[in-house]
Amino acid sequence: MTTPLRLGIAGLGTVGAGVVKIVRQKAALLSERTGRDIQVSAVSARHRDKDRGVSLADYAWEDDPVALATRDDVDVFVELMGGSDGPAKAATTAALEAGKDVVTANKAMLAHHGQALAELAEARGAILRFEAAVAGGIPVIKALTEGLAGNEITRVMGVMNGTCNYILTRMETGGLTYQDAFDEADALGYLEADPELDVGGIDAGHKLSLLSAIAYGTQVNFDAVELEGIGRVSIDDIRQAADMGYKIKLLGVSRMTGRGLEQRMAPCLVPATSPLGRLDGGTNMVVIEGDQVGQIVMRGAGAGEGPTASAVMGDVMDLARGFRISTFGQAASSLKVATPAAAATPAGYYLRMSLVDRPGALAKVAAALGESGISIARMRQYGHEKDTAPVLIVTHKATRAALDTAIEAMLATGVVDGVPVVLRIERV
Amino acid sequence: MTTPLRLGIAGLGTVGAGVVKIVRQKAALLSERTGRDIQVSAVSARHRDKDRGVSLADYAWEDDPVALATRDDVDVFVELMGGSDGPAKAATTAALEAGKDVVTANKAMLAHHGQALAELAEARGAILRFEAAVAGGIPVIKALTEGLAGNEITRVMGVMNGTCNYILTRMETGGLTYQDAFDEADALGYLEADPELDVGGIDAGHKLSLLSAIAYGTQVNFDAVELEGIGRVSIDDIRQAADMGYKIKLLGVSRMTGRGLEQRMAPCLVPATSPLGRLDGGTNMVVIEGDQVGQIVMRGAGAGEGPTASAVMGDVMDLARGFRISTFGQAASSLKVATPAAAATPAGYYLRMSLVDRPGALAKVAAALGESGISIARMRQYGHEKDTAPVLIVTHKATRAALDTAIEAMLATGVVDGVPVVLRIERV
Repeated sequence: MTTPLRLGIAGLGTVGAGVVKIVRQKAALLSERTGRDIQVSAVSARHRDKDRGVSLADYAWEDDPVALATRDDVDVFVELMGGSDGPAKAATTAALEAGKDVVTANKAMLAHHGQALAELAEARGAILRFEAAVAGGIPVIKALTEGLAGNEITRVMGVMNGTCNYILTRMETGGLTYQDAFDEADALGYLEADPELDVGGIDAGHKLSLLSAIAYGTQVNFDAVELEGIGRVSIDDIRQAADMGYKIKLLGVSRMTGRGLEQRMAPCLVPATSPLGRLDGGTNMVVIEGDQVGQIVMRGAGAGEGPTASAVMGDVMDLARGFRISTFGQAASSLKVATPAAAATPAGYYLRMSLVDRPGALAKVAAALGESGISIARMRQYGHEKDTAPVLIVTHKATRAALDTAIEAMLATGVVDGVPVVLRIERV
Repeated sequence: MTTPLRLGIAGLGTVGAGVVKIVRQKAALLSERTGRDIQVSAVSARHRDKDRGVSLADYAWEDDPVALATRDDVDVFVELMGGSDGPAKAATTAALEAGKDVVTANKAMLAHHGQALAELAEARGAILRFEAAVAGGIPVIKALTEGLAGNEITRVMGVMNGTCNYILTRMETGGLTYQDAFDEADALGYLEADPELDVGGIDAGHKLSLLSAIAYGTQVNFDAVELEGIGRVSIDDIRQAADMGYKIKLLGVSRMTGRGLEQRMAPCLVPATSPLGRLDGGTNMVVIEGDQVGQIVMRGAGAGEGPTASAVMGDVMDLARGFRISTFGQAASSLKVATPAAAATPAGYYLRMSLVDRPGALAKVAAALGESGISIARMRQYGHEKDTAPVLIVTHKATRAALDTAIEAMLATGVVDGVPVVLRIERV
């Protein structure tokens, strides 16, 4: 009989408690599937006496996660504290330094320090896995790193922040303003302590940067992710988009092009009848496109105790089975520094603006687009509200630079009130 | 530097040729990702001189796949010949006997001999993998065996025969009869040499039996899969189902119940707005439900050179990375013999019948259902066509036994012409 695989778990929020429950309640199943017993040796959290719905009496307690990570009776350090730096990074570093394997759900830490941690793991012969960091229970890291490893990946897309998708869905189905939908999500406890992590696209951007690293064999570069939150999306945009057969989603897109690596997390229009367009509420979806496999779509719960604990256990069980793989699917030293693409791949764009009530105003807008070489696929002007009229334009494929030039020209004519809303139409 | 992983490939149809192309054209990528060179040593097929769009000049040729499988310069035998017995089984057995790892796309062989082959692999310390056997390019075997291994799986469902889904979709969108849609699929080359493998649900049933084995830790038991093909589905059924918000899919469902293991591959009604209901054309979809993760949906191409070769390469690259895992995700000796459930989980049913033009006929049908304790959710009678009128009934949840009793009673009254069409409504 082999020796048991011994876990040290730091962070006992819902996910940490969920992992402890699975290890306790499914011991026979885990052992039958991996050929090895999986046990918890020690745990650590901020508050020792909190009731977590599961007994911790059998485990050693450490106040200090670094001490936990380096205990002799810990084979795998399970980091579920969160935070890009601080205790999570200190303990993860200590565990890897000590040659211990690490399983983490921490997207922020990996988005900021993934390359350094992967190099450290490699230097010490340790394994660092993070299935739970991206899209909750969907085994997308495994699919991309292993199942689809024979493909050149051409594009990765994802709706990976359930809170944003919930807000956008509620705006659409409930006719709520952004603020009302935001408040509703807040009341339901869906928002991070710093809501900007959600609605600013940062959390989802972290996840996208990790998928990019695996997909293209490049060093994680979160700073190069073009980030745009959902705060400027209005109920009008959602309605107009729906009228034209589109839905608005906070969509991550990562694409390797001849001009460099494109990474963008921004509200986009997608066809209402596509799988991404049909994704309502808090569910996540990741779309992977490979040169051999074509398009693979994966959908599931992106957060919550069970789904996230399921992903953590997937990584733990891989380690119990003796699977050893590099953090981003290839040697950390072989990951290339990708040049960020200076410009986005041309696309159709959706524009919404307020036109002042003046003869020839619409013609000036159309002329500005024409002069930038942008042709109009559809245009609608609605009735005047006070002194302005809403105008909606969908362009044919254009570069963002040409569009920005056109918008500048429009603004210079003085016929546009305020700044137009610009949303990319992503082909899915 | 490690030694290369050397493949022997038997079967050079589109998939085999696709694998050869990937190994030749992506050598650097494969080696970077796995840390090991992957090479082809030898190949085998029925006809040596056929043009397969890729040069085989660098590889040894074997006429006999058994000889190929046991060559000293072959580490992994890649079986892409197909067929449940004959050369595929002989060569796979020979490879495992010789302690060589095997990667296969052969669902029929595994559905019939999976347990014996898994036991043989285990006895010889060899690995037998089969991602390409189920749902083409979708890495569902890996998701179920590894990523979701921390879950008790509660249900697995899938649309896993693209040809059947194509036929049903064409009947719906093109208004074609079953025969016309079948002929169209045939003309497009979508059908197996023996079409009954497709339209009889056998091919998809093979796949379902493999998923069940992994999901529940049970020995593959294809013979226990309740099989029903799509041949009796009429354009009327598709239209009526659509009228009520349903689509008809050839759906596999596998569920472990207190009464035993339920495995069924049959045309079912699913909500038109569900991911399964929205799956049109030749695409595959697998839905996995676990106690922790909830519902995971995976969608992608279920066949074709690229997608199937992608799945084969996923398995090959796992072996190059040194991943060793039991065929069905746990030791073959630990797989239990599942008792097939004597009866299906109660469900709503859709019934379509021809009622003879006689006073009280509908009352007799309703009475027969009532006497079996089945309540009617919806009933519609349409206008008479000659001497009969189509009647459509959707029942509330009922056992199949009660339904069969009711149908027998209806038939005994003589008011029903012919045999009613009965389709299960699957909650998804």
